[in-house]
Amino acid sequence: MAEQINVETAYREYVKKIAAYNEALAVIFWDLRTGAPAKGTAQRSEVIGMLAAEVFQLSTSEEMGRFITLLTSTDGLSATTKIMIEKSREEYDRNKKIPAHEYKEFVILQSKSESAWMEAREKNDFSIYEPYLEQMVSYTRKFVDYWGYTDHPYNTLLDKYEPDMTVEILDRVFGELRERIVPLVQRIAQSNHKPETSFLYTHFSKEDQEAFSLNILQQLGYDFEAGRLDETVHPFATGINRGDVRITTRYDENDFRGAVFGSIHECGHAIYEQNISKELTGTLLDTGTSMGIHESQSLFFENFIGRNIHFWEKQYPVLKEYASEQFADVSLEDFYRGINESKPSFIRVDADELTYPLHIMVRYELEKELFSGTLEVKDLPDAWNKKYQEYLGITPRNDAEGILQDIHWADGSFGYFPSYALGYMYAAQIKHTMTEELPNFDAYLQKGDITPIRTWLNTHIHQYGSTKKPLEILQATTGEGLNAAYLISYLEEKYSQIYQLD
Amino acid sequence: MAEQINVETAYREYVKKIAAYNEALAVIFWDLRTGAPAKGTAQRSEVIGMLAAEVFQLSTSEEMGRFITLLTSTDGLSATTKIMIEKSREEYDRNKKIPAHEYKEFVILQSKSESAWMEAREKNDFSIYEPYLEQMVSYTRKFVDYWGYTDHPYNTLLDKYEPDMTVEILDRVFGELRERIVPLVQRIAQSNHKPETSFLYTHFSKEDQEAFSLNILQQLGYDFEAGRLDETVHPFATGINRGDVRITTRYDENDFRGAVFGSIHECGHAIYEQNISKELTGTLLDTGTSMGIHESQSLFFENFIGRNIHFWEKQYPVLKEYASEQFADVSLEDFYRGINESKPSFIRVDADELTYPLHIMVRYELEKELFSGTLEVKDLPDAWNKKYQEYLGITPRNDAEGILQDIHWADGSFGYFPSYALGYMYAAQIKHTMTEELPNFDAYLQKGDITPIRTWLNTHIHQYGSTKKPLEILQATTGEGLNAAYLISYLEEKYSQIYQLD
Repeated sequence: MAEQINVETAYREYVKKIAAYNEALAVIFWDLRTGAPAKGTAQRSEVIGMLAAEVFQLSTSEEMGRFITLLTSTDGLSATTKIMIEKSREEYDRNKKIPAHEYKEFVILQSKSESAWMEAREKNDFSIYEPYLEQMVSYTRKFVDYWGYTDHPYNTLLDKYEPDMTVEILDRVFGELRERIVPLVQRIAQSNHKPETSFLYTHFSKEDQEAFSLNILQQLGYDFEAGRLDETVHPFATGINRGDVRITTRYDENDFRGAVFGSIHECGHAIYEQNISKELTGTLLDTGTSMGIHESQSLFFENFIGRNIHFWEKQYPVLKEYASEQFADVSLEDFYRGINESKPSFIRVDADELTYPLHIMVRYELEKELFSGTLEVKDLPDAWNKKYQEYLGITPRNDAEGILQDIHWADGSFGYFPSYALGYMYAAQIKHTMTEELPNFDAYLQKGDITPIRTWLNTHIHQYGSTKKPLEILQATTGEGLNAAYLISYLEEKYSQIYQLD
Repeated sequence: MAEQINVETAYREYVKKIAAYNEALAVIFWDLRTGAPAKGTAQRSEVIGMLAAEVFQLSTSEEMGRFITLLTSTDGLSATTKIMIEKSREEYDRNKKIPAHEYKEFVILQSKSESAWMEAREKNDFSIYEPYLEQMVSYTRKFVDYWGYTDHPYNTLLDKYEPDMTVEILDRVFGELRERIVPLVQRIAQSNHKPETSFLYTHFSKEDQEAFSLNILQQLGYDFEAGRLDETVHPFATGINRGDVRITTRYDENDFRGAVFGSIHECGHAIYEQNISKELTGTLLDTGTSMGIHESQSLFFENFIGRNIHFWEKQYPVLKEYASEQFADVSLEDFYRGINESKPSFIRVDADELTYPLHIMVRYELEKELFSGTLEVKDLPDAWNKKYQEYLGITPRNDAEGILQDIHWADGSFGYFPSYALGYMYAAQIKHTMTEELPNFDAYLQKGDITPIRTWLNTHIHQYGSTKKPLEILQATTGEGLNAAYLISYLEEKYSQIYQLD
């Protein structure tokens, strides 16, 4: 017994060390993205390499192997330790199956591939990036072989970002979604009742946007003693530890929506991490459980709170105080319709909430084919353009507004994209259950105090960190598995009303 | 031969790892001081502890011991490796001599002592801090016993911050300095020609102070691609790596001098580190060679450039552009005399450049007595006050403006204070030699392009990093050992002129 306690304690101390290195890395990454001086970054990369190698070494060491073997066959471990061991074993197995030299080659290729992608995007020339992407795909295919798979090679990649997610589930829900969204997008295109949007593009100073964003974040319950807001080109949220969850945003003085909805989106991510149970500190379980559940929280805040008319009943007058006179003659109703304008576009990150899932489905279909071997990299740009025509009714005029827009494939994150749309479906499903339990949902937004909403999310989702798997959380919270119907009816109702469709 | 090259290479790789951990720690410390959210700091301390323990372990490991033994008896090493080995051995010996459990106790005591000091300062009550300070002194005395000493126990402490500095040298130069400064301060007190200073305290907005400081930093050659300026309560410079040397400042809207001279001071530290030879990256030698030489660079910039009338010939009109109307009726001469006002005061960090060294000497005398055993902690406040009366002619009214003002003793940095005054003497001596070689010194300031001055400092001092010891640098640069005469004549000339002494 004494022996067992000792091993459990030693293992948890060992994991704490990995967590400490991860936290140091998170500070360094935040710093790099928010203003580290250019001339120091080459040396900083060496530091990152050194720390990352240490983390890799610690999680694949013989010592870790012994911990896993010993503790797997031990009774009476705490529930948390059991989950930690399970995660450690997954990580250990995953990393041990790749020959060390191939992993190293892959890491080097990864950074070359990112540079090539950046150059290709700048020059609008896919051919610069193509040979690197080919190698990234071929390494990833090889890794999938090492890891093995059930039913479909792509399942193994999905599982990295969304445990237990499968092609079978995605084909079903994405199919249902597409079947209803595509006609809805077409009906909107034919509507005679389009929103006025010119006021969206009037000058709104950066300082005022920032002040308004800070005000909104405060109201939404983002804890500024456990976070901060900075400016970056590519906004993000990062949980350095649960008492230090930072967000960033960007300001376009000719379109305030990026900063405002971006801040609300990142706030959703951050509130998730700020409210993970304190007991999980140092266990590696004190982060969001999957990319999809994480995105469900950011999209819940961005769309189901931030794009809700009741939210703006309270906030629109506040916005007007921070803005100059551009909204003086714009009614709440017109403002609401303006910020919810929907139309097909080329760039995923700028897409509206209705067409966004279609952008994801394009990528999902292409990734699936790449890893079932029915599509090759050289044929990707063409396949991309065809899918955009099929799903969104538009064809990119060049690769920069087509296949070159995302970094994900350049850095090897195959299997990541579906999480964005999954998160959206999770959010709609969660919203449906929440509204049954909190029938005054809209009234909280009207009052500008969302404490009951946040507390509900804390209770059902946030506190657990990574101790529950995504589909477990969904089942426990909503009483059913993934169901696309909730997102579909949300979109159909909202957009039928905005565009006055029959 | 192959074997030797392998050992040398392996040793340098090993040191690179220590350097990487130090760099990660430097990023974390900068972040903590510039705005890390409060709720994350407890967990961050664990990370710091983990990384610091790793550095300690690496520098005292058996592997390090073997490197030192093997390479000390090896011929044909590069000059840099030889110096690295010497530093590694010093560090190894120093750390190995302290029993591990005592070092751990000391580290824990250190943080308790800092907290007690903060509370004592807030409550203006030395007795809260006294028992901790007693223990800090008693541990340090014990450590000096472990380390051993030559001639005087305090020499061992001095050597930590200023290699090869001794009580013998300090007694001589501080004696010479005091003998001439004390009467000068008294003559100034009796002068009828005191500067007008009311314009110093007029409102100057933070934004304008910041803009002016950035302008000055640019002109002085601080490289913003290898650094950045932030705001903190206690300003500092930190060389995270030689391509990332950051500075901070603070803004008092009723006294612009803190921000302006503070920025110039930190700029001096930063320009030192930004210009260390690139080849020294990853060797642990890419930092300033001692606290004293570091301070010589910051004080060179602050006093010999920033408080020079020729500097303001160019910069005063610039300052006026950034200020509102408060300087409209103040002549350059009056401005210069105002910013150089000198009078005895209680707080070291706010002291003028003439009385500053006296503050240091008070602390030096007390530290020396503490470690020769002729003074005990309980008698310190009284001894402090007597020395202030003796050197500066004023007696602190309470401990907050007396013995409680500095953090140095609370965190165990005994032996550090003399570096401040040493740096000042080094700077004056360096300035003397420089002026012989660059007779147009003042003209460079008048023109606002100090490139020749900076290049001279790069050549003689900066590039070497820690490869040369402080007194080696001084000897090589000025052709003689430490000589207080240069600082004395600088101060006598300047203040006789400002206060029109006969």
